Amino acid sequence: MPERLGPALPEPLFDRLTLVGIGLIGSSIARAARQLKLARTLVAVDRDDAVVARVRELDFADEVTTELAAGVSGADLVVLCVPVGACGAVAEAMRPALKPGAIVSDVGSVKGSVVAQVEPHLPDGVHLVPAHPVAGTEQSGPDAGFATLFLNRWCILTPPEGTDSAAVERVRALWEALGSDVEVMSAQHHDLVLAITSHVPHLIAYNIVGTAADMEEVTQSEVIKFSAGGFRDFTRIAASDPTMWRDVFLHNKEAVLEMLGRFNEDLAALQRAIRWSDGEALYSLFARTRAIRRSIISMGQETPEPDFGRRHEPQ
Amino acid sequence: MPERLGPALPEPLFDRLTLVGIGLIGSSIARAARQLKLARTLVAVDRDDAVVARVRELDFADEVTTELAAGVSGADLVVLCVPVGACGAVAEAMRPALKPGAIVSDVGSVKGSVVAQVEPHLPDGVHLVPAHPVAGTEQSGPDAGFATLFLNRWCILTPPEGTDSAAVERVRALWEALGSDVEVMSAQHHDLVLAITSHVPHLIAYNIVGTAADMEEVTQSEVIKFSAGGFRDFTRIAASDPTMWRDVFLHNKEAVLEMLGRFNEDLAALQRAIRWSDGEALYSLFARTRAIRRSIISMGQETPEPDFGRRHEPQ
Repeated sequence: MPERLGPALPEPLFDRLTLVGIGLIGSSIARAARQLKLARTLVAVDRDDAVVARVRELDFADEVTTELAAGVSGADLVVLCVPVGACGAVAEAMRPALKPGAIVSDVGSVKGSVVAQVEPHLPDGVHLVPAHPVAGTEQSGPDAGFATLFLNRWCILTPPEGTDSAAVERVRALWEALGSDVEVMSAQHHDLVLAITSHVPHLIAYNIVGTAADMEEVTQSEVIKFSAGGFRDFTRIAASDPTMWRDVFLHNKEAVLEMLGRFNEDLAALQRAIRWSDGEALYSLFARTRAIRRSIISMGQETPEPDFGRRHEPQ
Repeated sequence: MPERLGPALPEPLFDRLTLVGIGLIGSSIARAARQLKLARTLVAVDRDDAVVARVRELDFADEVTTELAAGVSGADLVVLCVPVGACGAVAEAMRPALKPGAIVSDVGSVKGSVVAQVEPHLPDGVHLVPAHPVAGTEQSGPDAGFATLFLNRWCILTPPEGTDSAAVERVRALWEALGSDVEVMSAQHHDLVLAITSHVPHLIAYNIVGTAADMEEVTQSEVIKFSAGGFRDFTRIAASDPTMWRDVFLHNKEAVLEMLGRFNEDLAALQRAIRWSDGEALYSLFARTRAIRRSIISMGQETPEPDFGRRHEPQ
């Protein structure tokens, strides 16, 4: 499995690649694209003046602007790196500036809603190839990104039926250059899979952190001091970007509620096993969940080091 | 904050220190005690022949035996490092061999039950000072331990009312030597605090991993591949020792069910917010949970590195 980005490409994949929204994901794509020379001209668009100023300082794009139309004009590929709930408005606003034959993609954690929001605004001859790189950290903003974020991670493409296959292949080539494995599936299936592997886990992490914060019998200081017993792990996910995650839940409502229903059913059974001291039921679950982690590690999706490789030794 | 164990003590704290049960915690105490010269004679007891053989190879104890009575005989301090459910039987079995004035301690994640199980078996003049080092990894067994496991972590002592204060101070001295901060509280309060900071987090991690394993519409391969979206974090905790955790839930039933009830109430409110598209309620929770992680980091209980310091760069 590769452990570093490849060498720069002999020929750029795109003449003009425009990233809209320069947070963790946008800035990570930009850094890698710059390093790998994926585009002759790399354009960074953000509506926030402070972000644009910071991106100029960090110097990982050829053009940096708050002007959406100017940024996307002439682009072969435009990648929306904004919260899922903003995709429709951005697509509408950039429509007049898109060049014929351009490809529009995104990085949103929900795909059905992105297709529904963006597709109606695209002119004929502009191709929509939605993408979701399953990668990230709990940090946000242009300083948080890094070029190897997508290395050995999966990127899911969900082109609507009938999408131009050459356009799909160009987006695949982008993600493969960034070091990802690419899988293609329907937006509907994506939203179901991610509900259980990402959205419900985030929801219950936010929830337990909220529950702990509202305790009366246990002080905040105690919650913090004794968090190494397990709670602190959940606070990482619960420190993720609030706007991004609000939008995920609002835009993948059906699948999240379905998966949450199953989680709740299973939790009720565990609760009952505890109440009735059914040690066998508890042991049986706790023993079989170990195997899944071993698979995740052997598939290269997790570090084999104990405790995520958190440093215990002198730093 | 110290980043390494201190130098060896000028005088050992104990003439004879016996550890019963040489898993992750027992072997970590042994390694640190050996390095710091905390005892003139360090004794390791385990009922499992294979563990005893391995501990001899690893060579971190002066005496290694499967014989409980021989191991605890003459000890100033005996620390039970066995699953919570085994403490009563071990206490009963070792009773005749305990020397007058000995201190008995443990490392269990539940304290009320340990007191209830162990206290009736101790002869007069033997002191019970229960302890819970809030530290660990998802790994188990004598190979998994390391000397710095307790460094900068908290250790909670829950001596029953009227416990000899000199005995409490000797156990405090042990944990401070191991690099921990020590706090004293009632067993009842301990069990409530740990229910929310450790036991319920483990329960919901085991539960989500079980739910994901039972999916029909989503394949196991998909769960594994796309686990970097959040799910993989939960698999670490859900890979913890099944026997230890079965016992925790069976022996802290009341507090776990109470805290789980609150978790469920809060989750029902979140579920309703999603169903009714209440973006403000979602955003408001997601924004305030960030602050707790910042506090945990600034209190030295978590790494400030993104993604727990998981390696993204070339290894």
